[in-house]
Amino acid sequence: MELNRAKGTRDFLPEDKIVRNNVADLIRCSFEKYGFNPLETPILERFDVLSSKYAGGSEIMKETFKLNDQGKRDLGLRYDLTVPFARIIAMNKGLRMPFKRYAIGKVFRDGPLKLGRYREFWQCDADVVGCKDYVAEVELMNITKDVFENIGVEVNIDVNDRRVLDALVESVGIDKKNLNKVILVLDKLDKVGVEAVKKELIDAIGVSVEDSNKLLEIVLFEGDNSEKFEFVEEIIGENEGLENLRKLFSEVDGLNFSLDLARGLTYYTGTIYEFFLENGKDYGITSSLGSGGRYDKMIGDFIGDSNEYPAVGISFGLDVLSDVLKIKAEKENEVRSNTVVDVYVISIGCFDEAREIVEKFRGGGIKTDIDLLQRGIGKNLNYASKAGINYVVFVGKKELAEKKVKLKNMVTGEEKLMTVNECFKFLNEELIH
Amino acid sequence: MELNRAKGTRDFLPEDKIVRNNVADLIRCSFEKYGFNPLETPILERFDVLSSKYAGGSEIMKETFKLNDQGKRDLGLRYDLTVPFARIIAMNKGLRMPFKRYAIGKVFRDGPLKLGRYREFWQCDADVVGCKDYVAEVELMNITKDVFENIGVEVNIDVNDRRVLDALVESVGIDKKNLNKVILVLDKLDKVGVEAVKKELIDAIGVSVEDSNKLLEIVLFEGDNSEKFEFVEEIIGENEGLENLRKLFSEVDGLNFSLDLARGLTYYTGTIYEFFLENGKDYGITSSLGSGGRYDKMIGDFIGDSNEYPAVGISFGLDVLSDVLKIKAEKENEVRSNTVVDVYVISIGCFDEAREIVEKFRGGGIKTDIDLLQRGIGKNLNYASKAGINYVVFVGKKELAEKKVKLKNMVTGEEKLMTVNECFKFLNEELIH
Repeated sequence: MELNRAKGTRDFLPEDKIVRNNVADLIRCSFEKYGFNPLETPILERFDVLSSKYAGGSEIMKETFKLNDQGKRDLGLRYDLTVPFARIIAMNKGLRMPFKRYAIGKVFRDGPLKLGRYREFWQCDADVVGCKDYVAEVELMNITKDVFENIGVEVNIDVNDRRVLDALVESVGIDKKNLNKVILVLDKLDKVGVEAVKKELIDAIGVSVEDSNKLLEIVLFEGDNSEKFEFVEEIIGENEGLENLRKLFSEVDGLNFSLDLARGLTYYTGTIYEFFLENGKDYGITSSLGSGGRYDKMIGDFIGDSNEYPAVGISFGLDVLSDVLKIKAEKENEVRSNTVVDVYVISIGCFDEAREIVEKFRGGGIKTDIDLLQRGIGKNLNYASKAGINYVVFVGKKELAEKKVKLKNMVTGEEKLMTVNECFKFLNEELIH
Repeated sequence: MELNRAKGTRDFLPEDKIVRNNVADLIRCSFEKYGFNPLETPILERFDVLSSKYAGGSEIMKETFKLNDQGKRDLGLRYDLTVPFARIIAMNKGLRMPFKRYAIGKVFRDGPLKLGRYREFWQCDADVVGCKDYVAEVELMNITKDVFENIGVEVNIDVNDRRVLDALVESVGIDKKNLNKVILVLDKLDKVGVEAVKKELIDAIGVSVEDSNKLLEIVLFEGDNSEKFEFVEEIIGENEGLENLRKLFSEVDGLNFSLDLARGLTYYTGTIYEFFLENGKDYGITSSLGSGGRYDKMIGDFIGDSNEYPAVGISFGLDVLSDVLKIKAEKENEVRSNTVVDVYVISIGCFDEAREIVEKFRGGGIKTDIDLLQRGIGKNLNYASKAGINYVVFVGKKELAEKKVKLKNMVTGEEKLMTVNECFKFLNEELIH
């Protein structure tokens, strides 16, 4: 029998999973600071919910894993956290608005595998329902800055608005009924390049060569934010989306107005944004680290009342953020620990007594381990050093007779004889407080 | 369109998800204190891995969700965290032994729905590979006691050993080839009762009426631990499992030797255990809160070397533990908060200034929120009170002119005028440090 993983899936051994837990903890912490509450939805959803015309659109349905239960019911694995969230809001009408929730969980897409794309991956989402105002976007942009500051990397936050983009597309004379199709094509700009996008606009949608050129020229306009605001206003005049962007940019520093940002999902109705690593090429990471936008219609459409549930959300990719942190640590020659253990106890011929000391340390909340196989000092010291453990405690008979142990700081190499209680107190202060 | 969840799945709104996060955090903390490292495996597994004869057995395969990817590969959703873990060990032969890992994740079973049974649920597992000795079981039993102490409930820890149970079954003269079948039937004792078990032993397996009576009499023997050890030794004599149990019981207090504990999975080879809530009937929870055991053959069988990978593990049910905490809080009339928010800022006509203060608080790590819809004081105060938020900060024009705000302690009702900085400092000390 061939032992292998399912195609497009990954295992994460401790060295990597520790980084992933750190990233998830950081994001969760940011979300909670901003008053977002946790919520959990199932991975299994009814297929009709996932495939609703109000949901992600036909592109994403091609990549949706489909399955049945024993009762032959049609089910699917969720492809994002937004559609299940919309279902929750629709099914729980008594929730106080605005409802701010976060969710951290796995989503599934049965798509082609490219570098950095997997069939199951984690999303970390925060969404606000019930607030039409740009102040909701302000909170999400502030969370974004907080998350990346905590992770310790510089990012570009690209922002656009679907209403602005729609108006720009219409301004060149493209038929309104082709709007969504055109935007789906524009969304590929980063991946396929300008010429391929033009070709697809012309060949697949029937846009004229002239209109196609004009549209690309507009969305690729170069300039700083204020030049872009001016440029766009000249073309489309007054526009709700543009007005909203102005307010958002006036309140949050460091955003880039990106006229060519389109976002592929059909449910977006207003602000859209996507985050990219500054100098991503140096890291080998040019895909987005997160994204999101406003979807004011989806939840209402689910319910049958399309005005009452304006919503806006943000989504961070846990996998790519963990990769960023790993590469960053490598670049900075940081020692990456492959264990959560802070203190390693090495028994020198007194295994049972050493285990008692280990239990005492654990009782104080100290992450402590000991070699259950009772190997020799050299092997264990070598292991502790390689694993990146900070403290080793030697427990030997002679010292124990005086209730003492030897503490070794693995970073400085310093060793010190002290009583078990002194050692416990020191480690407790050092590691817990 | 009917908006609904997939059958057998649940949503968790903040009130419940906060409890679930607390439980998961507690368990993770215990696992890490005991030197277990985190590991993540995919939810999608190759069907041949899940259905391997060395894995969970035919009973569990009936309940395994099966699906295909677009390449028509046969996949399944994992039904536990142990089989994927065994696959990992088999695929990563360079890991240092003993390898201690924990995993917290969702598993799926397409089974009949009864009270407390769902089609997707969380397991929290810790496993040790590479240690044959009872000291591994000691650590797992200590974790169990630590987890339930932190959750604040009393449990019964029932312990048995497959080798003991096998010997007892053989002692009444039952054919060795029926051993596994008999144990699967015994595993139903709690659910179907003595008479139904006897009947199934006789009708389905062909055990004689006399042997069936004898076996049930033995496993239902009543007495304290030492009486049971004596009773069993008289029947089966020297036994490796019994010897191991003696050592385990001598080192860990508060375990119950349960001769009738069988555990349904076929891969167990030694110690087995299961945890039940003390006075579970008062809570309406009689199902197990967790369980586990030794499976010394599975990983080696996967690899083709059946002696080298002894393993023992433990699994806590996050769902049932969260239910226990909820019911406990209700019983003790604890106020359950439905938000993570610690501080709610109420603007009295100075929304923008209030939002700046909110940002300042968040910058200090304080979980802070404000009404993005700018409703009136009464409504917001009422909300904060109902939501169980501890502190409210009023931001009004008059006070702001003196750089002051009013802090209200929602538990004591006390109000105090203070500068923004004083307020920040106070909350920061109170909530973060």
